[in-house]
Amino acid sequence: MSSVDTIPNGSVTSPIGFSAGVASAGWKREGQPDVAVLVSETACSAAGVFTTNRVRAAPVLYDEALLRERPGRLRGVVMNAKYANACTGADGMRIATAMAAEVEKALKLPSRSILTLSTGVIGVPIPLDQAEPAIQDASRHLRPDGGIDAARAIMTTDRVPKHFAVRAEGANGTFTVGGIAKGAGMIHPTMATLLGVITTDAKVEPARITTLLGDVVNRTFNAISVDGDTSTNDSVLVLANGASDVDVDRDSESRRLFDDAIERVAHELALMVVRDGEGATKFVELTVAGAATESMARTVGRVIARSALVKTALAGSDANWGRILAAAGSSGAPLDPNRLTLYAQRRAPEGGPDGEWVTLARDGATAACDEALVQRIFSDRDLALRLDLGLGGAEATVWTCDLSDEYVHINADYRS
Amino acid sequence: MSSVDTIPNGSVTSPIGFSAGVASAGWKREGQPDVAVLVSETACSAAGVFTTNRVRAAPVLYDEALLRERPGRLRGVVMNAKYANACTGADGMRIATAMAAEVEKALKLPSRSILTLSTGVIGVPIPLDQAEPAIQDASRHLRPDGGIDAARAIMTTDRVPKHFAVRAEGANGTFTVGGIAKGAGMIHPTMATLLGVITTDAKVEPARITTLLGDVVNRTFNAISVDGDTSTNDSVLVLANGASDVDVDRDSESRRLFDDAIERVAHELALMVVRDGEGATKFVELTVAGAATESMARTVGRVIARSALVKTALAGSDANWGRILAAAGSSGAPLDPNRLTLYAQRRAPEGGPDGEWVTLARDGATAACDEALVQRIFSDRDLALRLDLGLGGAEATVWTCDLSDEYVHINADYRS
Repeated sequence: MSSVDTIPNGSVTSPIGFSAGVASAGWKREGQPDVAVLVSETACSAAGVFTTNRVRAAPVLYDEALLRERPGRLRGVVMNAKYANACTGADGMRIATAMAAEVEKALKLPSRSILTLSTGVIGVPIPLDQAEPAIQDASRHLRPDGGIDAARAIMTTDRVPKHFAVRAEGANGTFTVGGIAKGAGMIHPTMATLLGVITTDAKVEPARITTLLGDVVNRTFNAISVDGDTSTNDSVLVLANGASDVDVDRDSESRRLFDDAIERVAHELALMVVRDGEGATKFVELTVAGAATESMARTVGRVIARSALVKTALAGSDANWGRILAAAGSSGAPLDPNRLTLYAQRRAPEGGPDGEWVTLARDGATAACDEALVQRIFSDRDLALRLDLGLGGAEATVWTCDLSDEYVHINADYRS
Repeated sequence: MSSVDTIPNGSVTSPIGFSAGVASAGWKREGQPDVAVLVSETACSAAGVFTTNRVRAAPVLYDEALLRERPGRLRGVVMNAKYANACTGADGMRIATAMAAEVEKALKLPSRSILTLSTGVIGVPIPLDQAEPAIQDASRHLRPDGGIDAARAIMTTDRVPKHFAVRAEGANGTFTVGGIAKGAGMIHPTMATLLGVITTDAKVEPARITTLLGDVVNRTFNAISVDGDTSTNDSVLVLANGASDVDVDRDSESRRLFDDAIERVAHELALMVVRDGEGATKFVELTVAGAATESMARTVGRVIARSALVKTALAGSDANWGRILAAAGSSGAPLDPNRLTLYAQRRAPEGGPDGEWVTLARDGATAACDEALVQRIFSDRDLALRLDLGLGGAEATVWTCDLSDEYVHINADYRS
């Protein structure tokens, strides 16, 4: 028997052999930490998934090169908020290199063993004279329980630090997977970006995590939408140091357990990002079912999840199902408008039983339903929608939030 | 010598032989007209461009069939606000047919000679018992100057009626092109949709207007973005009755003059739609230059024009050039981030001289510029942006507005 259990207050430092430190470079108010260093005692297998934006920040380019060069010999990550190190010209790569080197020097690590993540304003070079002392400071104050502080240091418009970990127990022993993330919206590229770091003490080859991470991110971090904008800095990294001595590749059950544990952590972190979406007052799980392929289901789901019409209707607690069908129709997927059926359900946020499914539209036209019940579903903070395309057996789930006037205020007024 | 001149208070009834009538079906407050009928004294060549949404309203399906069946023998259009006749199942086509037949009967026109346009709530069938008397009423009150009233009748969240006309004078005589449009945002599919009708008394074959209309719409109605959502009902129709006796196909100069006149009317109507965008406080002309192809330039322009990040920054008068580069990078176009150069210019709204061009970013990184001047440009209502991709000689222009909190209010609170 195997099990995957949540670790209370878990984070990237929950797995054996990982520690983290934070410090202030003076960029956040009241000297709050804005720099974090995460390090493993031993070399890690590593993998990363990065933004599909053509305009890619220097840390993204730096990490991609490093992961190709030394995928099995990495030691950690240096992170900062406030400056994205994007659109910074030739300076950008020099700065990313200097930041990583500062950790390597402070901790006497091999050269080119530290990855980099940055988030914040685009187009302004990171002031190295402020960054370097802070990075040294963070490197000197590593703590085996420093993961949550690291999650807090990389917050920008986030309201809460995002961290999660699980303990996985199988026939071959116990290992841990932990993670932190930030990103109160992909809607805010001068300040918000999706960054995620997942650590584990399982033993695994880099090639295997690379393949796994692509799949997992597709179902988790890439299945959420705050507003559909893609940042120049979006990155999710995985570091596996093998300190638990549980070899993931030993048998198929171990592989499955590892896959589950990684997905669970990525899933929880991704949902935390949506729940903390800028100005969000609703949390919506949307499943597109009855699709010809999973990819078709995902495409339709993403288009609905980013529709400003759908999201403003949600903000107004308006069961405006026509907007959802119209968004599905605009997705480019070859759907049949006369087969679309849409259901809604109240979701109990804290466990508890979910409500019944109510049919809002059937075969592309309105369905007679209990208007008062529908209004209650759409007035709640948590709800689920299910759109059946009536074409096949494939489905995909995405998560989104509403688009409120608070979102506009955050994004319009930030620099003023 | 040829010339194309604006006709003051011009509309669809400016060309010879067109008249329009309006009436109230009781759907708008205080008995304001919500139904309009536009008719030509003689048969017209006609063409249409329709939404690319897979979920297509019944009037769209009706018109497409009719244009295929009788492209040279159409007589007019019946239009209504309040109900979109979309997602109405099998009822939809029956209702569209009945509405057109009501005009044909009232005016003793041949069967299947009237097109239909609807805009409003999705999923609710049009009450025919209210629509039919209003259509009869409008048909009985046709006026040769009724075009502006028709523009007003099809308004939904629009703040102003949209109408425009030009007189074109060439070596072969004078003809007129006029138009009306509605659409305060493609952001509002239960209430807003882009509808446009262009009329002309030039003589032209249906095949020629069909080809021309596709090109023109691409550069005008399809080059504007309020929020990027595509309605189930978007339609632009052209009706040409030949009453001026000017044959457009007589020579290349006549063809060019006709093309210019049609494009001018479509262009002005499209810009009126953006200026009247829901909650809009800014009007931005964005040219993407230096592209390998015009299609690439247009793709990049459209992605920037619909970015919530760019549009909220504009609402906040924030010269946040990083968001514009990031949006360009997310367009999927194979651009080189190190060649992106971005300029901004103050636009004088009422004629008058435009301001100087200021460079915000050069080669993908920040450019030293006069911050105070930049702030003045972004504080104005009208501005122009020029993004040079540095790859080739092709360019395209799109028009967009900002995303303000007022937009969220309009869309969140509409049905409550």
